[in-house]
Amino acid sequence: MTEAATVRRSRITPEREAELYTAVLDLLREVGYDALTMDAVAARTKSSKATLYRQWGGKAELVARAMGHQKRGHADVDTGSLRGDFYAMVTHSDDCQMEQNSALMRGLAMAIHGNPDLLRAFRELIIEPELAEMRRVLQRAVDRGEIRPDNPAMDYVVHMMIGGFAARTMIDELPPTQAYLTSYIDAVVLPALGA
Amino acid sequence: MTEAATVRRSRITPEREAELYTAVLDLLREVGYDALTMDAVAARTKSSKATLYRQWGGKAELVARAMGHQKRGHADVDTGSLRGDFYAMVTHSDDCQMEQNSALMRGLAMAIHGNPDLLRAFRELIIEPELAEMRRVLQRAVDRGEIRPDNPAMDYVVHMMIGGFAARTMIDELPPTQAYLTSYIDAVVLPALGA
Repeated sequence: MTEAATVRRSRITPEREAELYTAVLDLLREVGYDALTMDAVAARTKSSKATLYRQWGGKAELVARAMGHQKRGHADVDTGSLRGDFYAMVTHSDDCQMEQNSALMRGLAMAIHGNPDLLRAFRELIIEPELAEMRRVLQRAVDRGEIRPDNPAMDYVVHMMIGGFAARTMIDELPPTQAYLTSYIDAVVLPALGA
Repeated sequence: MTEAATVRRSRITPEREAELYTAVLDLLREVGYDALTMDAVAARTKSSKATLYRQWGGKAELVARAMGHQKRGHADVDTGSLRGDFYAMVTHSDDCQMEQNSALMRGLAMAIHGNPDLLRAFRELIIEPELAEMRRVLQRAVDRGEIRPDNPAMDYVVHMMIGGFAARTMIDELPPTQAYLTSYIDAVVLPALGA
């Protein structure tokens, strides 16, 4: 997040901000990224387009921030074990929300292809915070003595998790449910980490 | 592969078939799936469009078969160990080919979204053969006593591998080289399998 964006965004209340993000995600589900216009967001949220541009700079940042805000609903809490922390990461949304989000993410992955603004906003507001959270979770496990700090699988935890999500839809043609993700964590992620 | 398709395709020589597939992949790299036309394939390969449709049924099957043919270049050989078999799977293309293929696959993954014909052809001609090869590789490892037949990670090997490929581009913004993939196999896939 840039300093400028922080300052600009502080002018609206957190409640109003959350309301706006909900409307953006609703619209995104209804029409997809490409067909989403700032006019439609302004109409749905009864804001002026000038306000939207002043607060968020553009469609890409607004969408990435709306996605990021939704994920930030859960705090990164120390559950006391690596397994508990991983489980918390994949069970903070229920299966229905997870399926909606997974459809949204697929649609956005398409839009990112060939849209450098959206890619940049996504890296900054979605991917980097996820990577930072994963680093904290792993560091706690190292501190607890659950995993060795030099385990080479540490660099690949996000890769494994992305495979779990992406292949579930692509190969198994099933949604990534909580039951599936926790079984994937037990079968793949924890054994690879030697935990 | 359907019986009908086998019969139809048997009318052209393997050399001519390989030549056609090479031309299709070249065109695909040049213009992408959506802009690829049967007219362009016919012109490039000096075939009639009627012949192309008779032999392949349509663009989706022709493209999937061209991709599948290229992968089938390597035989599924028993190297004597699970690690050797996995290495063979990811080193049969050199890094330059791998980067080209990975760009092609990304483009096709976009096109598959919302194209049921292409999805069906892909499942039948690319994904199913890959899954079958993986099952043979794992069965050999079980027979050798390298992995336990009830290891729950067995069901997720393709998921792990897809994660390795997809996240390398998405998260690390690097191409999936042979060196990277073999290190991922050693750090993630083999330890998860307990091998």
